[in-house]
Amino acid sequence: MQHLSPLQLRQRCRSGQFSGTTSGLAPGFVQANMAILPKHYAADFLQFCHFNPKPCPLLGMAATPGATDMPALAQQLDIRSDLPKYRIFQQGQLTDEVADVRHVWRDDLVTFLIGCSFSFEESLLADGLEIRNITEKVNVPMYRTNLACTPAGVFHGGMVVSMRPMKPADAIRAIQICSRFPQVHGAPVHFGDPAAIGINHIDQPDFGDAVSIKPGEVPVFWACGVTPQVAIANAKLDFCITHSPGHMLVLDLPNSKLAIL
Amino acid sequence: MQHLSPLQLRQRCRSGQFSGTTSGLAPGFVQANMAILPKHYAADFLQFCHFNPKPCPLLGMAATPGATDMPALAQQLDIRSDLPKYRIFQQGQLTDEVADVRHVWRDDLVTFLIGCSFSFEESLLADGLEIRNITEKVNVPMYRTNLACTPAGVFHGGMVVSMRPMKPADAIRAIQICSRFPQVHGAPVHFGDPAAIGINHIDQPDFGDAVSIKPGEVPVFWACGVTPQVAIANAKLDFCITHSPGHMLVLDLPNSKLAIL
Repeated sequence: MQHLSPLQLRQRCRSGQFSGTTSGLAPGFVQANMAILPKHYAADFLQFCHFNPKPCPLLGMAATPGATDMPALAQQLDIRSDLPKYRIFQQGQLTDEVADVRHVWRDDLVTFLIGCSFSFEESLLADGLEIRNITEKVNVPMYRTNLACTPAGVFHGGMVVSMRPMKPADAIRAIQICSRFPQVHGAPVHFGDPAAIGINHIDQPDFGDAVSIKPGEVPVFWACGVTPQVAIANAKLDFCITHSPGHMLVLDLPNSKLAIL
Repeated sequence: MQHLSPLQLRQRCRSGQFSGTTSGLAPGFVQANMAILPKHYAADFLQFCHFNPKPCPLLGMAATPGATDMPALAQQLDIRSDLPKYRIFQQGQLTDEVADVRHVWRDDLVTFLIGCSFSFEESLLADGLEIRNITEKVNVPMYRTNLACTPAGVFHGGMVVSMRPMKPADAIRAIQICSRFPQVHGAPVHFGDPAAIGINHIDQPDFGDAVSIKPGEVPVFWACGVTPQVAIANAKLDFCITHSPGHMLVLDLPNSKLAIL
Protein backbone atom coordinates (compact mmCIF):
# COMPACT_ATOMS: atom_id res chain seq x y z
CA MET A 1 0.00 0.00 0.00
CA GLN A 2 2.79 2.43 0.94
CA HIS A 3 4.04 2.70 -2.60
CA LEU A 4 0.77 3.49 -4.33
CA SER A 5 0.46 6.90 -5.95
CA PRO A 6 -2.39 9.14 -4.77
CA LEU A 7 -4.33 8.28 -7.94
CA GLN A 8 -3.77 4.55 -7.48
CA LEU A 9 -4.86 4.81 -3.85
CA ARG A 10 -8.05 6.69 -4.80
CA GLN A 11 -8.80 4.06 -7.43
CA ARG A 12 -8.45 1.29 -4.83
CA CYS A 13 -10.95 3.18 -2.68
CA ARG A 14 -13.31 3.57 -5.63
CA SER A 15 -13.20 -0.12 -6.51
CA GLY A 16 -13.78 -1.13 -2.90
CA GLN A 17 -10.33 -2.72 -2.54
CA PHE A 18 -9.27 -0.33 0.24
CA SER A 19 -11.28 1.14 3.11
CA GLY A 20 -8.63 1.66 5.81
CA THR A 21 -6.98 4.67 7.41
CA THR A 22 -4.65 6.70 5.24
CA SER A 23 -2.01 7.56 7.86
CA GLY A 24 1.41 6.86 6.37
CA LEU A 25 0.08 6.15 2.88
CA ALA A 26 1.20 8.05 -0.24
CA PRO A 27 3.98 9.74 1.74
CA GLY A 28 4.80 13.25 0.54
CA PHE A 29 1.29 14.03 -0.63
CA VAL A 30 -1.38 16.19 0.98
CA GLN A 31 -4.28 14.48 2.75
CA ALA A 32 -7.44 16.46 3.39
CA ASN A 33 -10.36 16.64 5.77
CA MET A 34 -13.62 16.70 3.82
CA ALA A 35 -17.09 18.14 4.41
CA ILE A 36 -19.95 17.99 1.92
CA LEU A 37 -22.96 20.23 2.66
CA PRO A 38 -26.15 21.25 0.90
CA LYS A 39 -25.61 24.53 -0.98
CA HIS A 40 -28.07 26.23 1.38
CA TYR A 41 -25.27 26.12 4.02
CA ALA A 42 -22.27 26.59 1.74
CA ALA A 43 -21.94 30.37 2.00
CA ASP A 44 -22.09 30.25 5.80
CA PHE A 45 -19.55 27.44 5.97
CA LEU A 46 -17.20 29.23 3.61
CA GLN A 47 -17.45 32.30 5.81
CA PHE A 48 -16.80 30.18 8.92
CA CYS A 49 -13.59 28.88 7.31
CA HIS A 50 -12.61 32.41 6.33
CA PHE A 51 -13.17 33.67 9.88
CA ASN A 52 -11.27 30.75 11.46
CA PRO A 53 -8.35 29.99 9.18
CA LYS A 54 -6.20 28.24 11.79
CA PRO A 55 -8.62 25.40 12.63
CA CYS A 56 -10.37 25.51 9.20
CA PRO A 57 -7.74 26.19 6.51
CA LEU A 58 -9.54 25.75 3.21
CA LEU A 59 -7.52 23.70 0.72
CA GLY A 60 -10.22 23.54 -1.90
CA MET A 61 -13.91 23.92 -2.69
CA ALA A 62 -15.88 22.36 -5.53
CA ALA A 63 -16.43 24.74 -8.45
CA THR A 64 -20.22 24.29 -8.44
CA PRO A 65 -22.91 22.47 -6.42
CA GLY A 66 -23.08 18.86 -7.47
CA ALA A 67 -19.54 18.83 -8.88
CA THR A 68 -17.69 15.63 -7.97
CA ASP A 69 -14.28 16.57 -9.34
CA MET A 70 -11.51 18.99 -8.28
CA PRO A 71 -9.07 18.84 -11.17
CA ALA A 72 -6.53 21.22 -9.63
CA LEU A 73 -6.05 18.94 -6.63
CA ALA A 74 -6.70 15.38 -7.78
CA GLN A 75 -6.89 13.98 -11.31
CA GLN A 76 -9.90 11.83 -12.27
CA LEU A 77 -11.45 12.48 -8.86
CA ASP A 78 -14.90 11.24 -7.97
CA ILE A 79 -15.45 12.69 -4.50
CA ARG A 80 -18.32 10.21 -3.94
CA SER A 81 -16.11 7.12 -3.98
CA ASP A 82 -12.44 8.05 -3.74
CA LEU A 83 -12.12 8.27 0.04
CA PRO A 84 -11.76 4.99 1.97
CA LYS A 85 -14.66 5.73 4.34
CA TYR A 86 -17.41 8.33 4.78
CA ARG A 87 -19.80 9.37 7.50
CA ILE A 88 -23.36 10.41 6.68
CA PHE A 89 -25.26 12.72 9.06
CA GLN A 90 -29.00 13.40 9.03
CA GLN A 91 -30.71 15.91 11.32
CA GLY A 92 -27.34 16.35 13.04
CA GLN A 93 -27.01 12.64 13.86
CA LEU A 94 -24.49 10.14 12.48
CA THR A 95 -26.66 7.69 10.57
CA ASP A 96 -24.22 5.69 8.48
CA GLU A 97 -20.54 4.94 7.86
CA VAL A 98 -19.92 3.73 4.32
CA ALA A 99 -17.24 3.25 1.65
CA ASP A 100 -19.16 5.09 -1.06
CA VAL A 101 -21.80 7.86 -1.08
CA ARG A 102 -23.05 7.63 -4.66
CA HIS A 103 -26.40 6.33 -3.39
CA VAL A 104 -27.06 9.51 -1.39
CA TRP A 105 -25.51 12.02 -3.80
CA ARG A 106 -27.53 15.13 -4.71
CA ASP A 107 -26.97 17.90 -7.21
CA ASP A 108 -27.08 20.55 -4.47
CA LEU A 109 -24.10 19.18 -2.50
CA VAL A 110 -20.97 21.35 -2.18
CA THR A 111 -17.61 19.80 -1.32
CA PHE A 112 -15.04 21.49 0.96
CA LEU A 113 -11.50 20.24 1.62
CA ILE A 114 -9.64 21.37 4.74
CA GLY A 115 -5.96 20.96 5.60
CA CYS A 116 -4.83 18.11 7.83
CA SER A 117 -1.97 17.85 10.31
CA PHE A 118 -0.49 14.84 8.47
CA SER A 119 1.21 17.36 6.16
CA PHE A 120 3.12 19.23 8.85
CA GLU A 121 3.88 16.08 10.84
CA GLU A 122 5.85 14.88 7.82
CA SER A 123 7.97 18.05 7.88
CA LEU A 124 8.56 17.76 11.63
CA LEU A 125 9.69 14.14 11.29
CA ALA A 126 11.95 15.06 8.36
CA ASP A 127 13.64 17.60 10.64
CA GLY A 128 14.33 14.92 13.22
CA LEU A 129 11.65 15.87 15.72
CA GLU A 130 9.78 13.14 17.54
CA ILE A 131 5.98 13.04 17.26
CA ARG A 132 4.76 11.18 20.30
CA ASN A 133 1.51 9.82 18.86
CA ILE A 134 3.49 8.34 15.94
CA THR A 135 6.11 6.87 18.30
CA GLU A 136 3.38 5.38 20.47
CA LYS A 137 1.36 4.28 17.41
CA VAL A 138 -1.88 5.91 18.52
CA ASN A 139 -4.14 8.65 17.17
CA VAL A 140 -3.10 12.19 18.12
CA PRO A 141 -4.84 13.43 21.31
CA MET A 142 -7.39 16.17 20.63
CA TYR A 143 -9.19 18.42 23.09
CA ARG A 144 -12.10 20.83 23.17
CA THR A 145 -10.95 24.27 24.40
CA ASN A 146 -12.40 27.55 25.62
CA LEU A 147 -10.96 29.31 22.55
CA ALA A 148 -14.11 30.41 20.72
CA CYS A 149 -14.31 30.32 16.96
CA THR A 150 -15.83 33.33 15.24
CA PRO A 151 -19.37 32.19 14.32
CA ALA A 152 -20.79 32.46 10.80
CA GLY A 153 -24.50 31.82 10.18
CA VAL A 154 -25.45 28.47 11.67
CA PHE A 155 -21.83 27.45 12.29
CA HIS A 156 -20.32 28.04 15.73
CA GLY A 157 -18.32 26.30 18.44
CA GLY A 158 -15.06 26.14 20.33
CA MET A 159 -11.71 25.41 18.76
CA VAL A 160 -10.53 21.83 18.97
CA VAL A 161 -6.76 21.41 19.30
CA SER A 162 -4.36 18.54 18.78
CA MET A 163 -1.47 18.10 21.20
CA ARG A 164 2.10 16.92 20.73
CA PRO A 165 4.50 16.99 23.73
CA MET A 166 7.97 18.40 23.05
CA LYS A 167 10.98 19.82 24.82
CA PRO A 168 10.94 23.63 24.57
CA ALA A 169 13.82 23.80 22.06
CA ASP A 170 12.02 21.29 19.82
CA ALA A 171 8.77 23.22 20.23
CA ILE A 172 10.55 26.38 19.03
CA ARG A 173 11.78 24.49 15.96
CA ALA A 174 8.29 23.07 15.37
CA ILE A 175 6.83 26.60 15.50
CA GLN A 176 9.30 27.67 12.82
CA ILE A 177 8.54 24.71 10.57
CA CYS A 178 4.76 24.86 10.96
CA SER A 179 4.72 28.62 10.29
CA ARG A 180 5.62 27.74 6.69
CA PHE A 181 2.38 25.77 6.34
CA PRO A 182 -0.60 28.02 7.09
CA GLN A 183 -2.92 25.82 4.98
CA VAL A 184 -2.41 22.90 7.36
CA HIS A 185 -3.09 24.78 10.61
CA GLY A 186 0.18 26.72 10.70
CA ALA A 187 1.99 27.51 13.96
CA PRO A 188 0.69 26.16 17.28
CA VAL A 189 -1.90 28.25 19.12
CA HIS A 190 -0.68 27.47 22.65
CA PHE A 191 1.90 25.60 24.68
CA GLY A 192 2.29 24.81 28.35
CA ASP A 193 -0.55 25.08 30.87
CA PRO A 194 -3.56 23.17 29.45
CA ALA A 195 -5.97 24.96 31.84
CA ALA A 196 -5.12 28.30 30.19
CA ILE A 197 -7.19 27.20 27.17
CA GLY A 198 -9.82 25.32 29.13
CA ILE A 199 -8.34 21.81 29.08
CA ASN A 200 -8.75 20.32 32.54
CA HIS A 201 -7.64 16.72 31.96
CA ILE A 202 -4.66 16.43 29.63
CA ASP A 203 -4.69 12.64 30.12
CA GLN A 204 -8.31 12.42 28.94
CA PRO A 205 -8.52 13.76 25.38
CA ASP A 206 -11.97 14.44 23.93
CA PHE A 207 -10.95 12.76 20.65
CA GLY A 208 -8.08 10.42 19.78
CA ASP A 209 -5.78 8.84 22.35
CA ALA A 210 -3.74 10.04 25.32
CA VAL A 211 0.06 10.10 24.89
CA SER A 212 2.81 10.26 27.50
CA ILE A 213 4.38 13.60 28.42
CA LYS A 214 7.93 13.14 29.66
CA PRO A 215 9.82 15.24 32.23
CA GLY A 216 11.11 18.44 30.64
CA GLU A 217 8.44 18.41 27.94
CA VAL A 218 5.53 20.78 27.53
CA PRO A 219 2.29 20.06 25.69
CA VAL A 220 2.16 21.99 22.41
CA PHE A 221 -1.29 22.65 20.95
CA TRP A 222 -2.24 23.09 17.29
CA ALA A 223 -5.60 24.16 15.89
CA CYS A 224 -7.27 20.98 14.64
CA GLY A 225 -9.40 20.02 11.67
CA VAL A 226 -11.95 18.43 13.99
CA THR A 227 -13.06 22.00 14.77
CA PRO A 228 -15.21 22.33 11.61
CA GLN A 229 -16.74 18.91 12.33
CA VAL A 230 -17.81 20.16 15.76
CA ALA A 231 -19.22 23.34 14.19
CA ILE A 232 -21.13 21.21 11.68
CA ALA A 233 -22.48 19.03 14.49
CA ASN A 234 -23.53 22.14 16.42
CA ALA A 235 -25.38 23.41 13.35
CA LYS A 236 -27.54 20.24 13.29
CA LEU A 237 -27.73 20.24 9.49
CA ASP A 238 -30.51 18.21 7.88
CA PHE A 239 -27.87 16.43 5.78
CA CYS A 240 -24.11 16.29 5.39
CA ILE A 241 -21.27 13.96 4.56
CA THR A 242 -17.75 13.98 6.02
CA HIS A 243 -14.72 11.72 5.76
CA SER A 244 -14.51 9.14 8.52
CA PRO A 245 -11.80 10.09 11.08
CA GLY A 246 -8.36 9.06 9.80
CA HIS A 247 -9.79 8.08 6.41
CA MET A 248 -8.72 11.13 4.44
CA LEU A 249 -8.87 12.19 0.81
CA VAL A 250 -5.36 11.80 -0.63
CA LEU A 251 -4.56 14.56 -3.15
CA ASP A 252 -2.04 14.75 -5.99
CA LEU A 253 -0.59 17.88 -4.38
CA PRO A 254 2.86 17.36 -2.79
CA ASN A 255 3.11 18.59 0.82
CA SER A 256 6.03 20.77 -0.21
CA LYS A 257 3.68 22.83 -2.41
CA LEU A 258 1.90 24.02 0.74
CA ALA A 259 5.04 25.72 2.07
CA ILE A 260 4.63 29.48 1.72
CA LEU A 261 8.40 29.97 2.00
CA MET B 1 18.30 63.16 20.52
CA GLN B 2 15.59 60.82 19.21
CA HIS B 3 15.52 62.46 15.80
CA LEU B 4 19.23 62.36 15.04
CA SER B 5 20.32 60.19 12.15
CA PRO B 6 22.84 57.42 12.89
CA LEU B 7 25.59 59.60 11.37
CA GLN B 8 24.58 62.64 13.41
CA LEU B 9 24.51 60.50 16.56
CA ARG B 10 27.98 59.08 15.87
CA GLN B 11 29.26 62.61 15.29
CA ARG B 12 27.89 63.75 18.65
CA CYS B 13 29.74 60.83 20.22
CA ARG B 14 32.93 61.77 18.40
CA SER B 15 32.76 65.42 19.47
CA GLY B 16 32.09 64.45 23.09
CA GLN B 17 28.59 65.94 23.09
CA PHE B 18 26.94 62.57 23.80
CA SER B 19 28.06 59.70 26.03
CA GLY B 20 24.75 58.15 27.13
CA THR B 21 22.97 54.88 26.43
CA THR B 22 21.63 54.39 22.92
CA SER B 23 18.39 52.55 23.79
CA GLY B 24 15.56 54.19 21.85
CA LEU B 25 17.86 56.43 19.81
CA ALA B 26 17.93 56.43 15.98
CA PRO B 27 14.83 54.21 15.88
CA GLY B 28 14.74 51.85 12.89
CA PHE B 29 18.52 51.45 12.67
CA VAL B 30 20.72 48.57 13.74
CA GLN B 31 22.75 48.92 16.93
CA ALA B 32 25.71 46.63 17.47
CA ASN B 33 27.74 45.06 20.23
CA MET B 34 31.45 45.70 19.65
CA ALA B 35 34.66 43.88 20.51
CA ILE B 36 38.14 45.01 19.48
CA LEU B 37 40.94 42.47 19.90
CA PRO B 38 44.62 42.19 18.99
CA LYS B 39 44.98 40.35 15.68
CA HIS B 40 46.70 37.49 17.51
CA TYR B 41 43.25 36.51 18.82
CA ALA B 42 41.17 37.49 15.80
CA ALA B 43 41.11 34.11 14.03
CA ASP B 44 40.04 32.32 17.21
CA PHE B 45 37.35 34.88 17.93
CA LEU B 46 36.00 34.69 14.39
CA GLN B 47 35.83 30.91 14.74
CA PHE B 48 34.07 31.26 18.10
CA CYS B 49 31.42 33.44 16.43
CA HIS B 50 31.12 30.96 13.58
CA PHE B 51 30.66 28.06 15.99
CA ASN B 52 28.09 29.94 18.11
CA PRO B 53 25.96 31.97 15.73
CA LYS B 54 22.96 32.37 18.01
CA PRO B 55 24.73 34.21 20.86
CA CYS B 56 27.48 35.67 18.60
CA PRO B 57 25.88 36.63 15.27
CA LEU B 58 28.58 38.52 13.38
CA LEU B 59 27.28 41.70 11.75
CA GLY B 60 30.64 42.91 10.57
CA MET B 61 34.41 42.68 10.90
CA ALA B 62 37.01 45.27 9.99
CA ALA B 63 38.67 44.63 6.63
CA THR B 64 42.19 44.69 8.07
CA PRO B 65 43.94 45.03 11.44
CA GLY B 66 44.11 48.67 12.42
CA ALA B 67 41.18 49.67 10.19
CA THR B 68 38.86 52.13 11.94
CA ASP B 69 36.17 52.28 9.27
CA MET B 70 33.45 49.91 8.06
CA PRO B 71 32.03 51.67 5.03
CA ALA B 72 29.36 49.06 4.29
CA LEU B 73 27.76 49.57 7.69
CA ALA B 74 28.44 53.18 8.74
CA GLN B 75 29.58 56.11 6.62
CA GLN B 76 32.52 58.21 7.87
CA LEU B 77 32.99 55.81 10.78
CA ASP B 78 35.85 56.16 13.23
CA ILE B 79 35.41 53.14 15.48
CA ARG B 80 37.72 54.78 18.07
CA SER B 81 35.36 57.65 18.87
CA ASP B 82 31.91 57.02 17.44
CA LEU B 83 30.45 54.99 20.29
CA PRO B 84 29.21 56.88 23.35
CA LYS B 85 31.27 54.86 25.83
CA TYR B 86 33.97 52.17 25.77
CA ARG B 87 35.48 49.71 28.20
CA ILE B 88 39.18 48.92 28.16
CA PHE B 89 40.42 45.60 29.52
CA GLN B 90 44.03 44.73 30.33
CA GLN B 91 45.17 41.27 31.47
CA GLY B 92 41.49 40.32 31.62
CA GLN B 93 40.59 43.15 34.01
CA LEU B 94 38.42 46.20 33.33
CA THR B 95 40.84 49.09 33.68
CA ASP B 96 39.01 52.06 32.21
CA GLU B 97 35.66 53.32 30.93
CA VAL B 98 36.08 56.17 28.47
CA ALA B 99 34.34 58.11 25.70
CA ASP B 100 37.18 57.72 23.21
CA VAL B 101 39.90 55.12 22.64
CA ARG B 102 42.19 57.00 20.24
CA HIS B 103 44.85 57.21 22.95
CA VAL B 104 45.13 53.40 23.21
CA TRP B 105 44.64 52.54 19.54
CA ARG B 106 47.09 50.17 17.90
CA ASP B 107 47.61 49.05 14.34
CA ASP B 108 47.09 45.40 15.28
CA LEU B 109 43.53 45.84 16.62
CA VAL B 110 40.69 44.07 14.81
CA THR B 111 37.09 45.24 15.22
CA PHE B 112 34.11 42.87 15.43
CA LEU B 113 30.45 43.91 15.45
CA ILE B 114 27.81 41.54 16.83
CA GLY B 115 24.02 41.78 16.56
CA CYS B 116 21.99 43.22 19.44
CA SER B 117 18.48 42.46 20.67
CA PHE B 118 17.41 46.09 20.19
CA SER B 119 16.76 45.20 16.54
CA PHE B 120 14.27 42.40 17.17
CA GLU B 121 12.65 44.21 20.12
CA GLU B 122 11.63 46.91 17.66
CA SER B 123 9.89 44.34 15.46
CA LEU B 124 8.14 42.76 18.44
CA LEU B 125 6.85 46.14 19.62
CA ALA B 126 5.72 47.01 16.09
CA ASP B 127 3.63 43.82 16.12
CA GLY B 128 1.92 44.92 19.33
CA LEU B 129 3.77 42.61 21.72
CA GLU B 130 4.72 43.93 25.14
CA ILE B 131 8.38 43.81 26.16
CA ARG B 132 8.41 43.80 29.92
CA ASN B 133 11.83 45.41 30.46
CA ILE B 134 10.75 48.30 28.23
CA THR B 135 7.39 48.63 30.03
CA GLU B 136 9.17 48.60 33.38
CA LYS B 137 11.94 50.91 32.10
CA VAL B 138 14.81 48.68 33.21
CA ASN B 139 17.58 46.78 31.47
CA VAL B 140 16.63 43.34 30.16
CA PRO B 141 17.38 40.53 32.66
CA MET B 142 20.24 38.29 31.55
CA TYR B 143 21.37 34.96 32.99
CA ARG B 144 24.30 32.59 32.78
CA THR B 145 23.13 29.11 31.69
CA ASN B 146 24.41 25.56 31.50
CA LEU B 147 24.18 25.69 27.70
CA ALA B 148 27.83 25.38 26.66
CA CYS B 149 29.20 27.34 23.74
CA THR B 150 31.46 25.46 21.34
CA PRO B 151 34.97 26.62 22.28
CA ALA B 152 37.45 28.03 19.77
CA GLY B 153 41.08 28.61 20.73
CA VAL B 154 41.22 30.68 23.91
CA PHE B 155 37.51 31.53 23.78
CA HIS B 156 35.06 29.43 25.78
CA GLY B 157 32.18 29.76 28.20
CA GLY B 158 28.47 29.22 28.77
CA MET B 159 25.72 30.89 26.81
CA VAL B 160 24.22 33.98 28.39
CA VAL B 161 20.52 34.49 27.67
CA SER B 162 18.16 37.43 27.92
CA MET B 163 14.63 36.86 29.19
CA ARG B 164 11.29 38.40 28.26
CA PRO B 165 8.10 37.05 29.90
CA MET B 166 5.16 36.48 27.55
CA LYS B 167 1.87 34.63 27.33
CA PRO B 168 2.33 31.45 25.22
CA ALA B 169 0.41 32.81 22.20
CA ASP B 170 2.61 35.94 22.22
CA ALA B 171 5.72 33.78 22.60
CA ILE B 172 4.69 31.80 19.49
CA ARG B 173 4.32 35.07 17.56
CA ALA B 174 7.68 36.28 18.90
CA ILE B 175 9.32 33.05 17.71
CA GLN B 176 7.92 33.67 14.22
CA ILE B 177 9.10 37.29 14.13
CA CYS B 178 12.56 36.63 15.56
CA SER B 179 13.14 33.72 13.17
CA ARG B 180 13.33 36.33 10.42
CA PHE B 181 16.35 37.95 12.13
CA PRO B 182 19.14 35.38 12.57
CA GLN B 183 21.77 38.14 12.69
CA VAL B 184 20.29 39.52 15.90
CA HIS B 185 20.08 36.21 17.81
CA GLY B 186 17.12 34.76 15.88
CA ALA B 187 14.46 32.62 17.55
CA PRO B 188 14.53 32.04 21.31
CA VAL B 189 16.58 29.09 22.58
CA HIS B 190 14.25 28.12 25.44
CA PHE B 191 11.00 28.94 27.20
CA GLY B 192 9.41 27.82 30.44
CA ASP B 193 11.33 26.09 33.23
CA PRO B 194 14.47 28.17 33.97
CA ALA B 195 16.14 25.24 35.78
CA ALA B 196 16.15 23.25 32.52
CA ILE B 197 18.95 25.52 31.28
CA GLY B 198 20.67 25.96 34.63
CA ILE B 199 18.98 29.14 35.86
CA ASN B 200 18.15 28.67 39.55
CA HIS B 201 16.97 32.16 40.51
CA ILE B 202 14.85 33.81 37.84
CA ASP B 203 14.40 36.84 40.14
CA GLN B 204 18.17 37.31 40.43
CA PRO B 205 19.59 37.92 36.95
CA ASP B 206 23.38 37.75 36.52
CA PHE B 207 23.28 40.91 34.39
CA GLY B 208 20.64 43.61 33.95
CA ASP B 209 17.53 43.91 36.09
CA ALA B 210 14.76 41.57 37.23
CA VAL B 211 11.32 42.05 35.66
CA SER B 212 7.92 40.85 36.82
CA ILE B 213 6.44 37.65 35.40
CA LYS B 214 2.64 37.73 35.52
CA PRO B 215 0.24 34.80 35.97
CA GLY B 216 -0.20 32.93 32.69
CA GLU B 217 3.17 34.08 31.35
CA VAL B 218 6.25 31.98 30.73
CA PRO B 219 9.83 33.24 30.64
CA VAL B 220 11.16 33.20 27.07
CA PHE B 221 14.95 33.06 26.66
CA TRP B 222 17.04 34.41 23.77
CA ALA B 223 20.75 33.91 23.18
CA CYS B 224 22.42 37.14 24.28
CA GLY B 225 25.29 39.28 23.03
CA VAL B 226 26.82 39.27 26.50
CA THR B 227 27.95 35.71 25.70
CA PRO B 228 31.00 36.82 23.66
CA GLN B 229 31.92 39.28 26.42
CA VAL B 230 31.96 36.42 28.92
CA ALA B 231 34.08 34.35 26.51
CA ILE B 232 36.48 37.28 26.14
CA ALA B 233 36.67 37.67 29.92
CA ASN B 234 37.35 33.92 30.29
CA ALA B 235 40.17 34.21 27.74
CA LYS B 236 41.96 36.80 29.95
CA LEU B 237 43.31 38.69 26.93
CA ASP B 238 46.24 41.00 27.53
CA PHE B 239 44.28 43.79 25.87
CA CYS B 240 40.83 44.42 24.45
CA ILE B 241 38.18 47.07 24.02
CA THR B 242 34.39 46.62 24.09
CA HIS B 243 31.43 48.95 24.03
CA SER B 244 30.12 49.85 27.48
CA PRO B 245 26.86 47.97 28.22
CA GLY B 246 23.90 49.77 26.62
CA HIS B 247 26.24 52.18 24.82
CA MET B 248 26.11 50.63 21.37
CA LEU B 249 27.48 51.49 17.95
CA VAL B 250 24.60 52.83 15.86
CA LEU B 251 24.87 51.77 12.21
CA ASP B 252 23.39 53.23 9.02
CA LEU B 253 21.80 49.84 8.31
CA PRO B 254 18.00 49.77 8.76
CA ASN B 255 16.75 46.95 11.01
CA SER B 256 14.50 45.82 8.17
CA LYS B 257 17.60 44.94 6.11
CA LEU B 258 18.39 42.20 8.63
CA ALA B 259 15.16 40.34 7.85
CA ILE B 260 16.00 37.22 5.84
CA LEU B 261 12.38 36.97 4.64
